[in-house]
This record gives sequence, structure tokens and C-alpha cells, in this order.
Amino acid sequence: MHSTDSPSADAGTQAVIDHLAARQQPIVAWLEDFLRIPSVSADPAFAPGMDTARRFLLERLRAIGLHEVQLLDGGGEPAVYGEWNGAPGKPTLMVYGHYDVQPADPLALWRTPPFEPATVDGRLYARGSSDVKGSTTIALETIAAFLAVRGGCPVNIKVFLEGEEETGSPSLRRLVERHRALLRADAVLSADGGRASAEVPTINTGARGNAQLEVRLRSAHKDLHSGRYGGGVRNALHEMARLIASLHHADGGVAVEGFHAGAQPPTPRQRADTAAFPYDEAAFFADVGGSDHGEPGYSARERITLRPALDVNGLWGGYTGEGGKTIVPCEAGAKLTARVVAGQDPGAVIRAVLRHLQAHCPPGCTLETVALHEGSPASTLAPAHPLVRAAEAVLERESGRRPIHVRLGASVPVTALFKETLGIDTLMFGFNLPDEDVHAPNEFFRLASIQQGARAWTLLLAELASYPPARFHGH
Amino acid sequence: MHSTDSPSADAGTQAVIDHLAARQQPIVAWLEDFLRIPSVSADPAFAPGMDTARRFLLERLRAIGLHEVQLLDGGGEPAVYGEWNGAPGKPTLMVYGHYDVQPADPLALWRTPPFEPATVDGRLYARGSSDVKGSTTIALETIAAFLAVRGGCPVNIKVFLEGEEETGSPSLRRLVERHRALLRADAVLSADGGRASAEVPTINTGARGNAQLEVRLRSAHKDLHSGRYGGGVRNALHEMARLIASLHHADGGVAVEGFHAGAQPPTPRQRADTAAFPYDEAAFFADVGGSDHGEPGYSARERITLRPALDVNGLWGGYTGEGGKTIVPCEAGAKLTARVVAGQDPGAVIRAVLRHLQAHCPPGCTLETVALHEGSPASTLAPAHPLVRAAEAVLERESGRRPIHVRLGASVPVTALFKETLGIDTLMFGFNLPDEDVHAPNEFFRLASIQQGARAWTLLLAELASYPPARFHGH
Repeated sequence: MHSTDSPSADAGTQAVIDHLAARQQPIVAWLEDFLRIPSVSADPAFAPGMDTARRFLLERLRAIGLHEVQLLDGGGEPAVYGEWNGAPGKPTLMVYGHYDVQPADPLALWRTPPFEPATVDGRLYARGSSDVKGSTTIALETIAAFLAVRGGCPVNIKVFLEGEEETGSPSLRRLVERHRALLRADAVLSADGGRASAEVPTINTGARGNAQLEVRLRSAHKDLHSGRYGGGVRNALHEMARLIASLHHADGGVAVEGFHAGAQPPTPRQRADTAAFPYDEAAFFADVGGSDHGEPGYSARERITLRPALDVNGLWGGYTGEGGKTIVPCEAGAKLTARVVAGQDPGAVIRAVLRHLQAHCPPGCTLETVALHEGSPASTLAPAHPLVRAAEAVLERESGRRPIHVRLGASVPVTALFKETLGIDTLMFGFNLPDEDVHAPNEFFRLASIQQGARAWTLLLAELASYPPARFHGH
Repeated sequence: MHSTDSPSADAGTQAVIDHLAARQQPIVAWLEDFLRIPSVSADPAFAPGMDTARRFLLERLRAIGLHEVQLLDGGGEPAVYGEWNGAPGKPTLMVYGHYDVQPADPLALWRTPPFEPATVDGRLYARGSSDVKGSTTIALETIAAFLAVRGGCPVNIKVFLEGEEETGSPSLRRLVERHRALLRADAVLSADGGRASAEVPTINTGARGNAQLEVRLRSAHKDLHSGRYGGGVRNALHEMARLIASLHHADGGVAVEGFHAGAQPPTPRQRADTAAFPYDEAAFFADVGGSDHGEPGYSARERITLRPALDVNGLWGGYTGEGGKTIVPCEAGAKLTARVVAGQDPGAVIRAVLRHLQAHCPPGCTLETVALHEGSPASTLAPAHPLVRAAEAVLERESGRRPIHVRLGASVPVTALFKETLGIDTLMFGFNLPDEDVHAPNEFFRLASIQQGARAWTLLLAELASYPPARFHGH
């Protein structure tokens, strides 16, 4: 445990930290109340729980002194909103969290009921504790403490709590576009997207982008009898298999011309940070029964975060039911996803894949493009971005260690959506940890994370206040 | 049209031929009555039609003087049976036909109603006319004519008319095994399996055998997120595609070690007969939109009849529904069929395929054998078999041309079944032609085929009488 005193906090900020430390018990009690509400967005049977969670949050946002407290509707589950705009000239931070949780099934595997919070050895067990009611509580209580102790926050705040994160945010884009003026901000602080490691401080500085392609290969007008035609004609499955096999070299590297175009080589700092990240590569593979395979010259973690990749997500053709059917199939389909890195145009990359498939499609066969989604480019928080600088300063002071920059292999949909719709960047600053069984039975959140998180959020808001709003843009 | 006189028929046989020629009109009338009965085996709504067809045939078999006329039950649609055993010391021929027909759908495409026979330009249009009530009628009327004109047949006869041919003969094996003693014979003459060409006489001397395999490849315990794992781990679909692609050389030849083991090279006569067969290779491909591809050094027709082949019949894995799903699939499946030729052990061939797949399965992946069916070897009617000799003699005398031996790419299930259950060979001696739209709207049968067929069946029965029964066995 850290001491309550922060070596760098000014007196006002220190008072907020002390206030939060003193309030640990009511904060946990409030979180437990929040966790008792079964706000499962995926199951209509839990609609009353969703409604209760919204009313619970509206009440809290009003109680801590936010303004414009309301539900924002996009056609699906509404978001809960509240703001505090009392810091003119200071940056405006949207604070993102979500109040919906995953279904608790399979119930039989829970040691304690999922919606009856139970604390064992400093771990608070409940559905949604780690994902993400715990970190959402940290963010809200930090704001509450600033308002209670100092009568205001160091920055302007727009709290935005989504209700559809666990169902893929189907109406989020419409909701944000509909309330664009209200949601205008300089950056997003997300309570979702937790710490990458309990051992070292990390800052997520971006994610790979992606693009998708679906193709259909045809070798004849109809499926043919394999007795009457087998050995005489092209078989769509043989040809599709040959096409798919041609996409990668035997060593795992992508063989498509133009696939790596524009890819910025990993910087020495990126490679050093990746190497410094505590990461059990053997466990990474053993956990999922997978085996190490991919572009030579890079570690597995480098490959999945710093290098582009090409995966077939689905492949089909011919007879796939019970038993056998003696046909020469006339058609085969494949769905593919390209993951792209900084510097790459995902549209250009996926079109290079399509060109490769077309060029390798044999005579007598046709290749149809069923879908081509140009997708999203890789996202990057520049090292000089105030979100990164501020987080680095806070985490380094708190831990005594220089934070490691980490990147994600997959983009975070809400981060990409806020960038596209509002043009602003997101810092993920949740305090959950990777081992807390999110989306699984016996999900838990470490109670110690509440005080650590509240300290860090307090220092972060104070730190961010030192950057002029314009510095958050144009990266 | 041929003349009624056969240069080689003895007086008794000629009298039968003359009788059949004189009876052309009542024979066609009886066939039309047969065609009016909607005996669709696939659709339970036509059960009354099936029953009517059986009673219609039982009545006819009794009327022409067969004995033991009865239905034989195997648990499905019964077969219609009758016999004539008045030629002691002569061979016993089972005469096979079937009284069930394909469904007539799509009805809208018929120019005349499918169960109201209509003759236009010498073609008798009706469902089942070509497949196979026409040729069944030829066989029955030939027997009837022998019994009427000469009081007996040159050989012993066991008429066996199946009711499940169009539904895959689900109970035929049980039916034959249950009535094995009754069905004992020296060979089968089948009214099904028509002429391969209108231009040249052909004799079918066999078919490829086959064996089947289904495998499942696994690369991980579960599907993985393609963002978090893509580029890091093996993808089951990439690996399965690589395995499937490895089965064939780029030129189309099979690359599996041991796949061709035992295959008898096509004999000069087989290659000459294949070349002599009137066959429009361009039309063969154009009809189905397929393209010429396979083992180098052989024509397409040689490849599909005289050479083994390996086809993937089904291939699947990952997400195959609408839209996309960004996964690294953990599992892929494939179904394969090997077609084997004379001299090959289908079990050995399919195990060679399995060994190839296992040997090429990459480290970290597992390959499971879901099913391995050793199948059936190729069937062959030896050139010296009395069925072949007799058919050759008849067809050469009738046409003035030496019949071409043809082989089928796919085995005929009933031929294989009679060989397995009764140990006897089958000669396909139907008189339908390949262009008669079987299994399609506006199916027709050429009326001229009735007299040609009846002459040939008359001569064939007489010719077969010259072989002692033992000569039909041990080939």
C-alpha cells in the first residue's frame, strides 16, 4: 500500500486524496449497492435492473453536484450524463464508464451469488465488480471528492456512462452524434480498459486497426457428382484452400505483396517497452492451447501489437452436415480480417489482399467480392499527447517506475468511435487487473485498487489542468 | 430403324422378335398406363400411387405366366417379384428394374402434365418414361413374348422390381438378405443404367470404387480474438487450407504418397475405347461451367473413368454466418472422397490420404479422424464374362459395329449391393439415352427404343442360354 501522502500533490489535491482515503468505507458500500443491481444489458429479462441502475446513477450524479444530469437516448439503452463546467480555460474531459454488465451465466459456477457482493481476502466478488462498476466508482468518487473538498474540479468534466458496452454499443454512434454539442470535449478518460499488469505501470498508447474482406470462389454452375466428375474438373474447395494457403509463407509471415506497405517499423522504445512488459509467453500460448506462429524476427507479443496480421475468420464450402456427400463442390467462401499498424491505410491493405486472391484465382474459376470493409486505421496516442504525459507523470510518481507504453492488438470500439465522431483521443485509466475473471464466474475487484485508483485519478485530473485545451488536439 | 429380321436369330427367337414387333401398340399402351401411375417414392403423399404401381405390376407378372408372384418386404417400399424356372441347367438371370420415379417438381416447367403421357415426334413424355419404366417394360415384354410364343424362356428368370431406387434404396440390403434364397441367381440384367451413346453401341464394364474420410484439425482450445491473437498463433483455417492444398500438385495430379498404389494402368484397349467413345469434351465442361483440371497425361474422360481421384467434398471452420466475426478459429473440418480404380484397395488408399494429412499437420495442431469408411473397390465386368460376351455378340450383330467398353466414374449402388449380398455381377442393359431429361421436367423416352430394346433383350436372353451357369461366377 502507498502512503496517503503524495510527494508531489499540492495542498489542495492532497486534501482531496485524504478525503477519499477517509471515505473508503462509504465508497465501498456505494459500490456494493451498485453491484446489487443486476444491470445485464444482453437479456431483456433484466430491463428492470437496467432501469434501476440508471436511476441509481442519476441520483448519485445529482448528489455530488453535477449539472445537466440526464439520460441521453440513441434508440437503445440510454447513457447517463452529468457535467461540471466550472473551470473556464481549462480542458474538458469526458469521463467514460459503463453501467451494464455481462450475463452471470453459468450461475452454477459462482461460489457466491453474482449480485450479492461478497468480500473475501480483500477481493470484492460480484458480476460487474471489475468490468467496470469498480473503476467507474473510482472516477465518480474522485470527481465527488474534488467538488466536496474544493468546491470544484481542476478541469471541466462530462460524465458519460454507457448502457450497451457489453452488447457491442449498437446505438452509441447515433447517441453520440445526436448529442454531439453536449458531449464536446478535449479528450476522454475511460474507466474501462484496465491496467495491463499488476507489477509495472503501463499506459496504453494505441491499438491496431483492421479491415475486412469476404470472397466467394466459384468453379462450376452447380455441385457436381464426385464420381462422375472427380479428377476431371476443378474443385472450388481445392482452389480456395490453395488461395488461402498462398496468403502466408510457411514460416508464418504474410506473403501478400503490399500487405506491409506503410507499416512503421517498431521504434526502439516500442521494442524495449514490449520486452520490459512482464509477460509469460509460454503461459500466453498454454492458456488457450495455441502455438507460436507468425512473422519471423518478432516476439509473439510484438507480432500481436506492433505488426500487421492477416487471419481467415471463416471458411466454408460443399457439404458440411452429418455423414458424407460425394460432390465436387462448386463454391467456397472465406471471410478475412487484416490487422494494420500505425502508418498503414487499412483500405489499401485489404485491397492488396483482394488483388492477391484475384491474381492467384485459377483459370476457369471466378472470385467474387462479397464484402470489403475498409475498416479503421490503427489508433495512436502520441508520446507527447497531454493524456500520455499526464498519465506518465502520475504513474511514475506513484510507482517510482517509468511507465511502460503498451499497445493493444485489437482496437477498443468506443475509443475508435469517440475519435471518429468527436475527434478526441481516449486515455484508458481503469484500475481493474487482467486476472479478475471478467465475463466469467466469480468476477472480482481488488478493494486495494479503489484507493490506488482514487489517488491516481485525483493526481491525473490535477495534472491535466496544467495543459491548455488546444494541446489535446491535432495529434 | 432395323429390319425385323435378325440375321443371326434362330427361327424360335425370330418368332419372338416378330411377336414383339407386332405388339408394339399394346406394349406402348401398357407403358402409358404404367406412366399414369404417380409412383413417387420420395413423397409420402404419393403412397397410393406406389401401391397402385405394385398392384399393376403384380397383375402383369401373373398375366404373363410368372410364378411366385409376390411383394418382397425389407421394411421400406416392397419390391415386386416373379420368376420362371422352366429351363433346368440353364443360367438364372435376375431381371432388375424399378417402379418408383423421381418427384415431378418443378411442375410449372412441364409442357405436358408429368403423369399424362404425351407422344410428340416419337418421344413419349412423362415422369419415369426414361427412368426407368420404359426399359422395365422392354424387359418384361421380352419375357412375356418368350412365354407366349415359345411357352418358355431360354434362361431361368427372376424379375425383381425395386420401389426405392430414387430414394437411395434404404431397405434394399435388408430386403435382399431376407430373401436371399429366393433371389439366388447367376447374374443380373438391369433395365436401369441406359445406353451411354445413341451413336455407338457400348457395354458398361465397371465403375470406380470409393472410400471416405472426415478429419478435424484443432489449433487451440477455443476460438481466439483475432485482434488479441492475430499474428501470434496458428489459425486452424490457415493450417487446414495448407493441408488441403498439399493434397494435389498445381497441375492437378494427386500428391499423396501411396495414393496410386495398385492402380492398374489403363490398358491399350481401354484407352482406345475411351478415345473411340463419341464425347464432346468441350460440352462436358461447358454444360456445368466447370474447367478442365486433373492428372496430366490423360484426357478428362480417362481421368474420370480410368484414374483414381481425390476430392474434398466439404470444408468448414470459423464464422460462416452473415457479416463478420474477428476470430482466429480453433477448429476446421474436411470431408474427402477417394475414387479408386481396378487393382486398388480403397482402404489402403484412404489411409494413405490420412497419413499424408497427419504427416503435414503442423506442430501445435492436432488432427482427429472423425470417420474413415473403407468403402468399396472398383467393380469390373471381365471382358471374358458371359454377360460381356453375350452383350457384345448381340450389339455387334445388331449395329454392325464392335461395342465400345465404357466404365463409369461412380459406382452404381445396386450393382455393388448385388455383388456384395448375392455375389453376382450385373449387366446394365437399359435402352434409355443420356439426353432424355431424367430427374428433370419434360422427361421423355424414345418410342423407337422399345422395338430396338425388345429385339436386343430377346437376342441377349437367347445368347446367354449358351453359357453354362458356372461360367457366370468367379470373375
